[in-house]
Amino acid sequence: MLSIRPATIDDAELLRTLIRELAEFERQLEFCVIETADLARDGFGADPKFRALIAEWDGKPAGYALFFGHYSTWVGPGLYLEDIFVRSQYRRKGIGMALLADVARIALQENCCAMRWEVLDWNEKAIELYKSLGAEFRDEWLQAVLTDEALRRLAEKAS
Amino acid sequence: MLSIRPATIDDAELLRTLIRELAEFERQLEFCVIETADLARDGFGADPKFRALIAEWDGKPAGYALFFGHYSTWVGPGLYLEDIFVRSQYRRKGIGMALLADVARIALQENCCAMRWEVLDWNEKAIELYKSLGAEFRDEWLQAVLTDEALRRLAEKAS
Repeated sequence: MLSIRPATIDDAELLRTLIRELAEFERQLEFCVIETADLARDGFGADPKFRALIAEWDGKPAGYALFFGHYSTWVGPGLYLEDIFVRSQYRRKGIGMALLADVARIALQENCCAMRWEVLDWNEKAIELYKSLGAEFRDEWLQAVLTDEALRRLAEKAS
Repeated sequence: MLSIRPATIDDAELLRTLIRELAEFERQLEFCVIETADLARDGFGADPKFRALIAEWDGKPAGYALFFGHYSTWVGPGLYLEDIFVRSQYRRKGIGMALLADVARIALQENCCAMRWEVLDWNEKAIELYKSLGAEFRDEWLQAVLTDEALRRLAEKAS
């Protein structure tokens, strides 16, 4: 039996476990350095930077969705779904779809006109599912990321 | 002479003008429906969804950068640069670089470990500049967007 509830600070350690399981699935575990204390502070402190939903199956943690606000200067506020994940033993029960639907419901409640997320290009099952929902894929936009030393070098050019 | 300052609610109309100039440059003006009142409410109300910097050259508006928080569950908080734009008559003066550097400085001040943004695949000059700064392009991630009727259909599946 499925239930979905908002994550609280008591879920910070569970969230880290689930995040690392997702990172492993995405073959990116080496890049995942987040700690439980980071998640507790960033998600459930004075200035929350994300919100999360925990999906439970028969009371056991089965998956999660983690999201935060985004803003389009063309159309206005949106929700950005950073992570969605269902543990392998709980797949094919509609849990991923239920999490997606809950995030969409929250988006509409908060007057967001869009929900966006990313998917790895080899994850064909997910891509097919997202297309079946009517998601558009924005192929013409490239994504740039600046980190670490390159970010510091750029910041030093500030007046 | 260049100066850069944080945008205030008095800049909402100017921001809309600059946003529409960027949308035109990006050949997306037909999708740009934001109004001045939306920007005033969303950027400068009780719950700001973005911040912006205005660049002035000899006291005249020359460009802007607009950004907000992002969160990576691998590494933690980051800044998302939604827009950066310099009016055509003010290009080749280092204004874009100064805006980028100011956003990077704010990112570091706020303990962000990354700054990210998007660029259209045909905007080769911008791509070259971003690469020269050390930006990485994340080609393996596809971006999905769900809007309007498709978003409502998904939300209706929520329990």
